[in-house]
Amino acid sequence: MTTLPGISDIRAAAARLSGLIVETPLIESEINNRYGGRILFKPETLQRTGSFKFRGAYNKLSSLSEEERGRGVVAFSSGNHAQGVAASAAMFGVKAVIAMPADAPAIKIANVRKMGAEVVPFDRYREDRATVVRPYVERGMVLVPPYDDPAIIAGQGTIGLELVAQASALGAKLDAVVIPCGGGGLSSGISIAVKDVLPGTSVWAAEPEHFDDTTRSLAKGERVSNEPAHVSICDALLVAEPGALTFEINRSYLAGGIAVSEDAVRQAMRDAMTHLKLVVEPGGSVGLAALSSGKIDLAGKCVAVVLSGGNVDLSVYAEIMAAG
Amino acid sequence: MTTLPGISDIRAAAARLSGLIVETPLIESEINNRYGGRILFKPETLQRTGSFKFRGAYNKLSSLSEEERGRGVVAFSSGNHAQGVAASAAMFGVKAVIAMPADAPAIKIANVRKMGAEVVPFDRYREDRATVVRPYVERGMVLVPPYDDPAIIAGQGTIGLELVAQASALGAKLDAVVIPCGGGGLSSGISIAVKDVLPGTSVWAAEPEHFDDTTRSLAKGERVSNEPAHVSICDALLVAEPGALTFEINRSYLAGGIAVSEDAVRQAMRDAMTHLKLVVEPGGSVGLAALSSGKIDLAGKCVAVVLSGGNVDLSVYAEIMAAG
Repeated sequence: MTTLPGISDIRAAAARLSGLIVETPLIESEINNRYGGRILFKPETLQRTGSFKFRGAYNKLSSLSEEERGRGVVAFSSGNHAQGVAASAAMFGVKAVIAMPADAPAIKIANVRKMGAEVVPFDRYREDRATVVRPYVERGMVLVPPYDDPAIIAGQGTIGLELVAQASALGAKLDAVVIPCGGGGLSSGISIAVKDVLPGTSVWAAEPEHFDDTTRSLAKGERVSNEPAHVSICDALLVAEPGALTFEINRSYLAGGIAVSEDAVRQAMRDAMTHLKLVVEPGGSVGLAALSSGKIDLAGKCVAVVLSGGNVDLSVYAEIMAAG
Repeated sequence: MTTLPGISDIRAAAARLSGLIVETPLIESEINNRYGGRILFKPETLQRTGSFKFRGAYNKLSSLSEEERGRGVVAFSSGNHAQGVAASAAMFGVKAVIAMPADAPAIKIANVRKMGAEVVPFDRYREDRATVVRPYVERGMVLVPPYDDPAIIAGQGTIGLELVAQASALGAKLDAVVIPCGGGGLSSGISIAVKDVLPGTSVWAAEPEHFDDTTRSLAKGERVSNEPAHVSICDALLVAEPGALTFEINRSYLAGGIAVSEDAVRQAMRDAMTHLKLVVEPGGSVGLAALSSGKIDLAGKCVAVVLSGGNVDLSVYAEIMAAG
């Protein structure tokens, strides 16, 4: 049995990451007027490597022994976790091999290579990612999982510590927090930290439609999978089902999940450009898109929204902006 | 004679603004590799109202007496100062009238109106802005100048205090700071704060070509004007000549100015999107564009770049992104 991470693990992760991460600001804008509430944005788009993933990856590598790290690390990822692992490995001076879908955004593949990691492309729809990395694990390299791991969850949870402290400094009493959700590492980590201080704050997972496994799993009380054969522009959030550890945490702490359409995601990306001056990737925008769902009470409330990443190809981004 | 603002005025402004402004982070990215140095970005794009201008405007309104504020305030501005004044006036609960060029970005005009200010449009090329605001001043409203005012300069200078402290926290020794320059309020304020602590750091003004009045004035040692009849996408930086107070400060503290082409500005906006995940308006991008000029020594150096604003219309932005 793996022990679930707790608030002390998140505090320890924050101490390890101190000075290495950007303490991303909490940003407020005139978008408040649209929702009739106070919306505070936590832009992990500005984090090292352009997404929150560096936090968990670095914390995981820190938790390995010198001997383990010396064998090198291997990961599979559509791109954000890949960049987090590659940057962390470079900082520890160890070898990294990353299996990435061949159709991952070019910017993500290029960045991973620039950081010195070896990229092994695979076919997202025909090959099993676990099979792709197996030879490297058998050779002794340490697998750094994308979400279902206590050290990864604790690293992502450091966002929750910052969020609570920053909201308090602004004199804001958080009624709700909305978090993009793929495998659930980000929402589980943040919810541990938020609930520790603010047990009455409701925490929501936001997902793309057809990839709303956590939303449906929370409603059913057990893990359910997504129907295969769907596609989405939210490349960062495309998993088959919730993680075992992450779901165990999310079922305890989350108020529920919200699924959003592709059109709502594109509109949220344009809203982030116009009102927040932030470039947010599709998967990073689902929390903002979820505000328009009507499922979260916004009038007169204070709601924090995590913008989890900004790694989107210029051509894709330009097309979405131009469609506004 | 107006007294020039000093470091104590900037410290007092910082105390007034504390808790009301976003302490914008200092961001580093893999763009370092391109320049062979360490480039730290200060994104005032994330400031309240989408540009640095709120700092100076709020500090100016704070410095007025209750009686003066009660008469209301008036300003002329292409948009960023307008938003700073409108937001400050709303916070003090006083009336604001803003003269804006009819061809200012729609987002800037709309935001000023949303904040409750009255917008008086004028023709940038045929009408004199001073004439447009005169009736309001004669009626008793207090003029809030865009840059040539000690309280405005001190407010913008608070960025310099943050910059020095944040760079120090990152263990970075600043070799140079590059600042977008229109009338010179931002560069003069920041240079006072930076030079107070780091007298050896060189401070540069960046300007659009054909609007390089500060660059040429610094070279000549006296204020010179721009040739009329030029246009530029950098709507925030289009002034006729440097301010009297701002130039007095800039001539003491600045290493020089750098003029950049429109193409370099557009490329800098795309670079900010790809590498920094930040939406930066044309005028806010000139400092980043100036890095490619060859005028600043970057190899092995640490250089801070201020990104001064992000208020650009979606359609204009989409077109510039698509041209990449």
